[in-house]
Amino acid sequence: MENQYTPPKIWTHNDDNGGAWASVNRPISGATHEKTLPIGKHALQLYSMGTPNGQKITIMLEELLALGKNAEYDAHMINIGNGDQFSSGFVALNPNSKIPALVDHASETAEPIFESASILVYLAEKFDALLPKDGAKRIHVFNWLFWLHGSAPYLGGGFGHFYAYAPEKFEYAINRFTMETKRQLDVLDKQLANHEFVAGNELSIADIAIWPWYGNLALGNLYDAKDFLQVHEYSHVQCWAKAMLARTAVQRGSIVNRSWGEPWEQLENRHSAEDIDKVLALKPV
Amino acid sequence: MENQYTPPKIWTHNDDNGGAWASVNRPISGATHEKTLPIGKHALQLYSMGTPNGQKITIMLEELLALGKNAEYDAHMINIGNGDQFSSGFVALNPNSKIPALVDHASETAEPIFESASILVYLAEKFDALLPKDGAKRIHVFNWLFWLHGSAPYLGGGFGHFYAYAPEKFEYAINRFTMETKRQLDVLDKQLANHEFVAGNELSIADIAIWPWYGNLALGNLYDAKDFLQVHEYSHVQCWAKAMLARTAVQRGSIVNRSWGEPWEQLENRHSAEDIDKVLALKPV
Repeated sequence: MENQYTPPKIWTHNDDNGGAWASVNRPISGATHEKTLPIGKHALQLYSMGTPNGQKITIMLEELLALGKNAEYDAHMINIGNGDQFSSGFVALNPNSKIPALVDHASETAEPIFESASILVYLAEKFDALLPKDGAKRIHVFNWLFWLHGSAPYLGGGFGHFYAYAPEKFEYAINRFTMETKRQLDVLDKQLANHEFVAGNELSIADIAIWPWYGNLALGNLYDAKDFLQVHEYSHVQCWAKAMLARTAVQRGSIVNRSWGEPWEQLENRHSAEDIDKVLALKPV
Repeated sequence: MENQYTPPKIWTHNDDNGGAWASVNRPISGATHEKTLPIGKHALQLYSMGTPNGQKITIMLEELLALGKNAEYDAHMINIGNGDQFSSGFVALNPNSKIPALVDHASETAEPIFESASILVYLAEKFDALLPKDGAKRIHVFNWLFWLHGSAPYLGGGFGHFYAYAPEKFEYAINRFTMETKRQLDVLDKQLANHEFVAGNELSIADIAIWPWYGNLALGNLYDAKDFLQVHEYSHVQCWAKAMLARTAVQRGSIVNRSWGEPWEQLENRHSAEDIDKVLALKPV
């Protein structure tokens, strides 16, 4: 057996470990530098980055705007590759140093809201949309919302890390998380075989939570893993993922707080609808 | 470099992979065998196992009973080591084949509720307890409830798997997930430095979700990792974990659907308060 590692009695931190994200992973929490966050003119101030967890919120806000709700917002880039999530300003909003975080300055105490799904629940309740108030429909939405929140770490922190970011290709870990990712895609595929949307026949915050992860994965937009995972096999996921992508709000929300991809996929900060319009207008027809 | 693995273009399943849980991990979902589930006499029927995710629900139910709510329940063992989660009956409740799942036969459609946190939200709303209805307190509970749901996979599926269950000790993976687990403990420790309970000064479903994972970990009851993680360093987590353990409901809920540990920690199925009383009575004084 090649692998001769025996864990020590007490673990100690070694800076060499971590792969592509080594510089941003630490065994302690808290701020690394003093910096206040910008505040724009709208009540809703979002501090985020256009990764799947960030896209959830901007898609939600754009869906709310499309429904005629007064959900105007400023979205400020928190570049996690640069360690912006460890500024004193951001840590004051989210002690866990993960994007996204939201502050609603129209609320009584402007309490920081963190964890993407907590923000989705807050916005759904504030605007009375995309989360049924009771009964079976509410159960379905929460079932699938929490399914995503508990499953995506295996996709992002497991499969994505070991397949795309780790400094070496570790066969055991890749197999472990690939198997789980394919199982998750299969769970979702079976659910979508009988339902137009994940939690039933209406769009909900469950779709908005799940699409940025499993929709983008199915469409080949995550980890360059389309062939490896044979994502085309999940035909109902494919169909739903494309239908979601056809939504104006999904297209608009997907490009916010991004500084990578094509020019028409990159809007660093969003302060008005026109900011998005200008970037999307760059797309060749 | 010893590690010469190159992933194939298309991943294929190999039964040899998986470690201690290899037999229950598959790349597809769905039932493996036909079997109906038992149904007891109470409205609330829980299908679960006393792992941390299962303990959340039985602790919640015992807390509700302690509050005088009519939360009587039957708790049926779903032994995940034996593949009970792949029975047709269980898959019909939770297509994701994870414990716990709950059915409320007093509700209009007896809709299956799955994902531990979805069950916590359902029970909190049904019995109007442990989840504030609005304002800053509600935000805090949802922030930390989702924090747990997104963090625990790194503890259980990451650290626990690679430290305790994987067929070999993989140094990189152990380091990665140990670092994240210690960071999470530190996040929690800082929050508990200023709050009696995780989401503020009142017990909530956030504590009930977090204690079975990080409380048990801090008390040395998970993965035999007390020294490795130096859990004693997280003094506020220690204090909270012990205060939670001192609660009657936590002691009662922790032993349900368990078939391991000391004799007074094992109650395979629970149909009445007396079932728990009898097992706890075995504890030496």
